[in-house]
Amino acid sequence: MEDRNHRIEIWLKSKTIDFSSLKTNVRTNIGAEALLLNKKGPKKAVPSSSKGIQTRQEVIARAVKIAAQEGLGALSIGRLAKELRMSKSGLFIHFGSKEALELAVIERAELYFYDHIVVPIEQEGREGIERVWYLCEAWLDLVENEILSGGYFFTGAFFTCAWQGGPIPRQVRQFARDWIDTLAAALKQARRQNEVAETIDAEDTAFELNSMLIGAQWSRLMTHTDHTNARSAILAKLHSVASEQIPGHAFLSVKAWTAYLKRRGR
Amino acid sequence: MEDRNHRIEIWLKSKTIDFSSLKTNVRTNIGAEALLLNKKGPKKAVPSSSKGIQTRQEVIARAVKIAAQEGLGALSIGRLAKELRMSKSGLFIHFGSKEALELAVIERAELYFYDHIVVPIEQEGREGIERVWYLCEAWLDLVENEILSGGYFFTGAFFTCAWQGGPIPRQVRQFARDWIDTLAAALKQARRQNEVAETIDAEDTAFELNSMLIGAQWSRLMTHTDHTNARSAILAKLHSVASEQIPGHAFLSVKAWTAYLKRRGR
Repeated sequence: MEDRNHRIEIWLKSKTIDFSSLKTNVRTNIGAEALLLNKKGPKKAVPSSSKGIQTRQEVIARAVKIAAQEGLGALSIGRLAKELRMSKSGLFIHFGSKEALELAVIERAELYFYDHIVVPIEQEGREGIERVWYLCEAWLDLVENEILSGGYFFTGAFFTCAWQGGPIPRQVRQFARDWIDTLAAALKQARRQNEVAETIDAEDTAFELNSMLIGAQWSRLMTHTDHTNARSAILAKLHSVASEQIPGHAFLSVKAWTAYLKRRGR
Repeated sequence: MEDRNHRIEIWLKSKTIDFSSLKTNVRTNIGAEALLLNKKGPKKAVPSSSKGIQTRQEVIARAVKIAAQEGLGALSIGRLAKELRMSKSGLFIHFGSKEALELAVIERAELYFYDHIVVPIEQEGREGIERVWYLCEAWLDLVENEILSGGYFFTGAFFTCAWQGGPIPRQVRQFARDWIDTLAAALKQARRQNEVAETIDAEDTAFELNSMLIGAQWSRLMTHTDHTNARSAILAKLHSVASEQIPGHAFLSVKAWTAYLKRRGR
């Protein structure tokens, strides 16, 4: 949990929100694991032996992979038991209910998200328009990679759940909100640094970039191609919001852009 | 079925594909109703009395409404029976299985789609860039309206199903493919009429417009606002692909654009 809290802290910092004021929010909205512990008591729901913890992690990892490609609806204790060659009852010790399993799966997807997108950008000290680019770039990379390669995270879940009540839709909505806020905060920061033109609306631009990302995911599921076009389109969008402080030649191609970022990193 | 075939004929015509060569395709890929009839035999699955047909239509309409907001996963014979105050066995006469119900629901959503988007545009004789606009405009209008106001059709279903096997994902994929083809065909037609610049790639532009549409649906689910921004953004996109044949002032605002379309309609 220590490690997880640290990641959430970085995530919240990336949204430039005061962490201390949000501790309750983190526990109720993001902390599926915490929610699960509160509900079932740690001894009942989470075996405390290291073997038990390892098994639980393996089950969640497999469940995330299934959900990424087929949605939460495709998950069942029975299917997981069969795929992992475990007994149903053995699996049931780790998750008291289908809902507890689903919450753990969404939380794991979020952790992949922090680890893959927010944490590296924070650690590498990406700022300004560069930070906006890397948020989009890492998002595309994440849906291209092996673990979250389906369409469910972070898009299908939102479209399917957004109007529903209950803890799972609430968590999915909060996650989507966090993502838009993170993009908008990066754009505002870039605007303060005069790398994004001062006339640009950060919220609107965040929604536009998000549209390009989910559109790219749609296209990829449809045509099985990579995100080359999407990267060019995002670069063109960044060009349209950038201030004169960023040299125009940097936007000529993704290659030119990467070279520009390398130079400015020195 | 007569009426349905007529609608599909208009739909296929809108993609400028030879209808006669596609009759098999229509039956296997679009015709869930036909598929259902083939599987179960008409007498078993579809009661032939007019009361029976009416009940079946009512059940499907309710099921579409549920699925639009919560996804196909939320459908069950039990829930429908409760909401419609029918007996489970009474409902079961109309749909031999959960899969048959789901296929009927997707087909109904497609029919709403033909009726609301393709048929009016065809009947009103919209051509050129005007046709591209009305396809997007009617799509937004459809996800705003009461029946299909959730996020499942036409987006959540695709993101959740696209990688899966089986008749339902196949039908969802085909539907998405048909939509992109329809947009691309309209863009090509507009290009032939010199209303879209000849350097514009119709497929790429179709994917970009689609991204803007599903991005707008995402934003609407997130913020509960209407699609005003999306309409402006789509207009800006059309401006960027239009030839010099379309006067620049027409793109100044959605109001200016609508006035321009009215004038050219005379």
